[in-house]
Amino acid sequence: MTRSKGTQAHSDNSAVNASITPSPITSAGESLIPEISPSRQPAWNNPNALTPAGPQGHESLALERAKASFDVNELTLLLHGKESLEQTAKVLEVCENDPVFNKDNFFFESRTERFKGSMERGKHIMDICRERGWDDKMIWKFFTIVDEPGPLFLHFSMFKPTLHGQCDDAQKEKWLPLADNLNIVGCYSQTELGHGSNVQGLETTATYIPSTQEFEIHSPSLTASKWWAGGLGRTATHAIVVARLILGEKDHGTHTFIVQLRSLDDHTPLPGITIGDIGPKYGYGSVDNGFMLFDKVRIPRENMLMRFARVEPDGTYVRPPSSKLSYGTMVMVRANIVDNAATNLARATTIATRYSAVRRQFTNPEASKNDALVAQQQQPVETSVLDYPMQQHRLLTRIAQSYALRFTGNAMMVLYNNLMADLAVGKISALPEVHATSSGLKSLTTDMASAAMEDLRRSCGGHGFLKNSGFPEFIADYLPNVTYEGDNYLLTQQTVRYLIKTFGALKKASAHKIDPKTLTQTTRYLLPATSPTFLTEKWPVVAAADLTNETIVKAFAHRAATMVATLAADLATGTQTWTGAQVDINAISKAHCQFVLVENFHLALATDLKASTSPQLHAVLTRLFKLFALDLIQQDIGSFTPYIHIQPQAPIVKQSIRTLLTELRPDAVALVDAWNFSDYFLNSTLGRYDGRVYEALVEAAAREPLNVGENFNVVSGYEEFYAPLIKAPFKAKL
Amino acid sequence: MTRSKGTQAHSDNSAVNASITPSPITSAGESLIPEISPSRQPAWNNPNALTPAGPQGHESLALERAKASFDVNELTLLLHGKESLEQTAKVLEVCENDPVFNKDNFFFESRTERFKGSMERGKHIMDICRERGWDDKMIWKFFTIVDEPGPLFLHFSMFKPTLHGQCDDAQKEKWLPLADNLNIVGCYSQTELGHGSNVQGLETTATYIPSTQEFEIHSPSLTASKWWAGGLGRTATHAIVVARLILGEKDHGTHTFIVQLRSLDDHTPLPGITIGDIGPKYGYGSVDNGFMLFDKVRIPRENMLMRFARVEPDGTYVRPPSSKLSYGTMVMVRANIVDNAATNLARATTIATRYSAVRRQFTNPEASKNDALVAQQQQPVETSVLDYPMQQHRLLTRIAQSYALRFTGNAMMVLYNNLMADLAVGKISALPEVHATSSGLKSLTTDMASAAMEDLRRSCGGHGFLKNSGFPEFIADYLPNVTYEGDNYLLTQQTVRYLIKTFGALKKASAHKIDPKTLTQTTRYLLPATSPTFLTEKWPVVAAADLTNETIVKAFAHRAATMVATLAADLATGTQTWTGAQVDINAISKAHCQFVLVENFHLALATDLKASTSPQLHAVLTRLFKLFALDLIQQDIGSFTPYIHIQPQAPIVKQSIRTLLTELRPDAVALVDAWNFSDYFLNSTLGRYDGRVYEALVEAAAREPLNVGENFNVVSGYEEFYAPLIKAPFKAKL
Repeated sequence: MTRSKGTQAHSDNSAVNASITPSPITSAGESLIPEISPSRQPAWNNPNALTPAGPQGHESLALERAKASFDVNELTLLLHGKESLEQTAKVLEVCENDPVFNKDNFFFESRTERFKGSMERGKHIMDICRERGWDDKMIWKFFTIVDEPGPLFLHFSMFKPTLHGQCDDAQKEKWLPLADNLNIVGCYSQTELGHGSNVQGLETTATYIPSTQEFEIHSPSLTASKWWAGGLGRTATHAIVVARLILGEKDHGTHTFIVQLRSLDDHTPLPGITIGDIGPKYGYGSVDNGFMLFDKVRIPRENMLMRFARVEPDGTYVRPPSSKLSYGTMVMVRANIVDNAATNLARATTIATRYSAVRRQFTNPEASKNDALVAQQQQPVETSVLDYPMQQHRLLTRIAQSYALRFTGNAMMVLYNNLMADLAVGKISALPEVHATSSGLKSLTTDMASAAMEDLRRSCGGHGFLKNSGFPEFIADYLPNVTYEGDNYLLTQQTVRYLIKTFGALKKASAHKIDPKTLTQTTRYLLPATSPTFLTEKWPVVAAADLTNETIVKAFAHRAATMVATLAADLATGTQTWTGAQVDINAISKAHCQFVLVENFHLALATDLKASTSPQLHAVLTRLFKLFALDLIQQDIGSFTPYIHIQPQAPIVKQSIRTLLTELRPDAVALVDAWNFSDYFLNSTLGRYDGRVYEALVEAAAREPLNVGENFNVVSGYEEFYAPLIKAPFKAKL
Repeated sequence: MTRSKGTQAHSDNSAVNASITPSPITSAGESLIPEISPSRQPAWNNPNALTPAGPQGHESLALERAKASFDVNELTLLLHGKESLEQTAKVLEVCENDPVFNKDNFFFESRTERFKGSMERGKHIMDICRERGWDDKMIWKFFTIVDEPGPLFLHFSMFKPTLHGQCDDAQKEKWLPLADNLNIVGCYSQTELGHGSNVQGLETTATYIPSTQEFEIHSPSLTASKWWAGGLGRTATHAIVVARLILGEKDHGTHTFIVQLRSLDDHTPLPGITIGDIGPKYGYGSVDNGFMLFDKVRIPRENMLMRFARVEPDGTYVRPPSSKLSYGTMVMVRANIVDNAATNLARATTIATRYSAVRRQFTNPEASKNDALVAQQQQPVETSVLDYPMQQHRLLTRIAQSYALRFTGNAMMVLYNNLMADLAVGKISALPEVHATSSGLKSLTTDMASAAMEDLRRSCGGHGFLKNSGFPEFIADYLPNVTYEGDNYLLTQQTVRYLIKTFGALKKASAHKIDPKTLTQTTRYLLPATSPTFLTEKWPVVAAADLTNETIVKAFAHRAATMVATLAADLATGTQTWTGAQVDINAISKAHCQFVLVENFHLALATDLKASTSPQLHAVLTRLFKLFALDLIQQDIGSFTPYIHIQPQAPIVKQSIRTLLTELRPDAVALVDAWNFSDYFLNSTLGRYDGRVYEALVEAAAREPLNVGENFNVVSGYEEFYAPLIKAPFKAKL
């Protein structure tokens, strides 16, 4: 594996800051790193060239890295694979050295400036990739590492995949080369001002006119305005438009059409199309989410995407062979969302864990007992925040979550690939389960990641509120994940509908023998709940040693199956209605998906990871698995009763969590380093690989526009607004 | 009570939008409001003057308002009082009619623009208040209603109160008139780059020089840089500086000093003072949080604030009579934070509840069964989102929280006033308990409010991600509450330290009789836990009717007392150390403070509210109390065992919550209207009093800078960046 400068966050990044020369640590007691600080240059905002008090950040991090119980390179390779690491290195080298990709001013720009910058960077990425012959995968690497959802983003993430998935062969031949070549720039326009979740309620119509063989696209009301599509507002020349297909008097529901929006000559909107940007958002300032109204806009019949449903020239409707065929794409999108949840959560743990190692607050000898930097000093040294049990709990449980999500993301990709292979030969039997589980997982994992990211930001104290901490824009950009591709609450209904149906079928069948070969992940854990003795079973845990991987997974299976069986019974007896049970349904989906996360992680440990990792690394991953699962149990232990007896089993869980935190503590920094996020990507003063946190905060403040140029000595506006107040003649109390 | 236009959100606000004329509803079945929509004006972005499909927003809200079981004006008066409502009306009238206070461009401005605007608004507020002879209370009303923390904010919230609290009489005479008259503008500079929570670890020194009777203020390291103080960066002429007092060789720890920072002639920083803005943050863009380094800056001895500790001219240190005298201010600040948590949470419930009434999604006859607008129509009408049980649960539990926090905020103000009366006559016995409970309450209530605000934002679906929803900036501005004035995790240690100490004292005393007159809120609930039979007690609930206010409060008291007793025993036996128990300590503080919230709300219902409210309103508030408390039990029911038996008591709790949600559903909109937030204050497209949500969204988008001026037809940057891509000669697939 080739490592290029800066690519590997845990490799020798110090070349970037030439005056720090980290040397490997041979034993904890030795003097660590030469005491040279690169900030010893007087600057207007640091005229005495002061350095931070106490142990320097790079010293603390070097000590942490020396403590790791496993080889961080092994884990990096496991997480990313050689090919991806090499691609990352290539793109990173371009980004770090090209001023167009410099992020120094990201946090100072207005939205208008940022959007224009994002256009420039988008163009630059395309030019570079064309010049070097790099494909869409490399374009995607650029988007990821520059870390800016731009106006061209949706062309690659939604427009092209939809053309691939929903065009018939003739349409593919026409549109794909244009899209590949960027002679057209596309977006995906489904959501309307009045309808998001309820896709079947969309109002835009596509009425077929047999005489001219055209569709007339029309917005009948204000709420029919297309709304939210990224890239629509100011960029796209074409859109995939989701509209109700009207043939004669009959409404055939929503279908997809390709519509040209803007002139390819001068980019002005075409007649009948009103279009614009919907305005500023929490995050995504670099994307032109748009609105659009159609006033009887005509498009040729051939612009309906016809791989599945078709309209013949005479207006005859040809039904698709199965309405579920397009679900495959949805599963892939959701698998990507789960994997993104892992990566984003890992990014937040990286910043918070590194900063917690550097940051010292109060002097607590008990907490600092393993800190060689404290032992070395004559005078009292404050305790690294990472040494406080509360902070360890906050950080390490989230580190464990990031790994759990990653292994489930991997498992979902395998499921998706199997599913696509099935669909290719006409088998659709696996679709309902994959769809149900992926819906609930999207909901659970994005909730988990967004909550964790915000708590990790808070774990950095006040400095986590600064944009240059790397948190605020990153979190704001992540937040739409809980809403788009299915609102997190609504999705859980789809999951539980499948579980109830499956449980009913198992119950009917249980009198007979069920062929074990037909059991899937879901049916395997639900089946025992059809037995009358199921509810009387108890968790076989009387001491910490009983908390094996298997008993832990069993607790999650038992809880989820109990909840499904209870709701099924309530629905059957009419004690509950489906609508009335919404709050329960949400909890059941969460329980099911927590089981899936825990079982997938467990299975990976027992199979792939067992085969592919060193014993040291396997031991660390097993601890992360246990911490992840036991923390989930402790958070909501009431829901595991009566299978788990709170007395005396809750204290056993609690004690095991403490032991795991102590065992994992020395690996904390190595576990975040392994994700291999570069400083360029993180763009964080607090999360720097070299620990120069305080120097970086001061350097970033020096660039603030309110401190420089015309504002340098006195801020613009002082003379106009404050001088008259301050210099007003002295009066008695107001 | 005089009501002026727009002041009362639930009064006839429609005068602002002259073409809507809401008429009172006489019965649910009647046709409601004239079908006139003010958006029926063609506009560039709505050329066909389209209106929303389905029932109009104002119809849905009118129907909701007609359902209320109580008089909304009665509740408004209870929440705010006549005087405050009249002050609000006066300020609102100014803000709504003065272009300087117009908020239309708030979401479009860069930070630099916003900051300058904020200077202008600050100046304008001062001018208006001087002209009209309005006092600081009215200035504060302006800050609240304009809803923009500005550079002058800290002058009023921290600088002046500190002068009042910590100056001796001679100092007050010198500084207060200058501060009152704004001849000096101040800030409060305590936190440093390297120290926030650990105030005792601050590094800035104030070394006394007896020969000149001066202090030398100095920053010995980079981490000693003052950091975060609001108003410091570009505005303040003076600062209260917290620094270590050094007399000869001896370090007396942190004390407060007043330091002039900038010239009163030209506002340039004085020699030896390096100063600037720390850069952009999550929120608070309109505040210049600053950094500052001192290079041996001399100030006169008289600039040490000497109400408590003193330094004599010869350098003799005079100790303060009690180190706890300054805690009074801290209690007041925290009481304000609790009350702010209530108001901010209520603001979020207002936006989410009104929008949920207007927004319709899917057609669900069961959920819509009480919706007269659905019954009226011939064709199917979608279900108001507020009619879905999941949404009701999310909104109504948060509405209940907002009221619970308000009544605790009130109770804390009473405590504070009693405390100050005590302190005035030298009694400090109440201080430890008030300090402990207020610390934990600050932590619990700000966590509760911030979590609720974000979930309420998400409950608005995608549109909650738009800045003009009123959520993103508002939430970002609120978030520092969980960190400042004591980090939420650290504070809980102060709370529990007091509880453990108190429990120990009660235990020792319990053999003897304790005088019931000496019992406080905390000792009253902890005392029973000193009995050996306490842990065997059971919750006396076998049916929903047993869930009286008293049994509910008892559950919270029992849980908290059990947790305190358990930790006390563990610490006594050495099973746990204080540092090792941090995770438990956090949970105990939460349990204690939930008890305080529940008991305070209960006490208010039994006394003040019983006397002052109509039976209808008292019934509604009682439901809110029960929903608030039972929801907290359900969320973490495992922690209530073994006092609560999950089987069969959890289902009783669950069923009661459902009943309460059904009972409170018709009052949802009235309960948020009662907080009386004006449209001007909310600045929200989704939370408008008149329900014109979709029209407002479209109107706001029309103002987006990317859509207007030079960007109108084609966005600036297209020619430079996209045209070359789109017009590139067609090539084969990349």
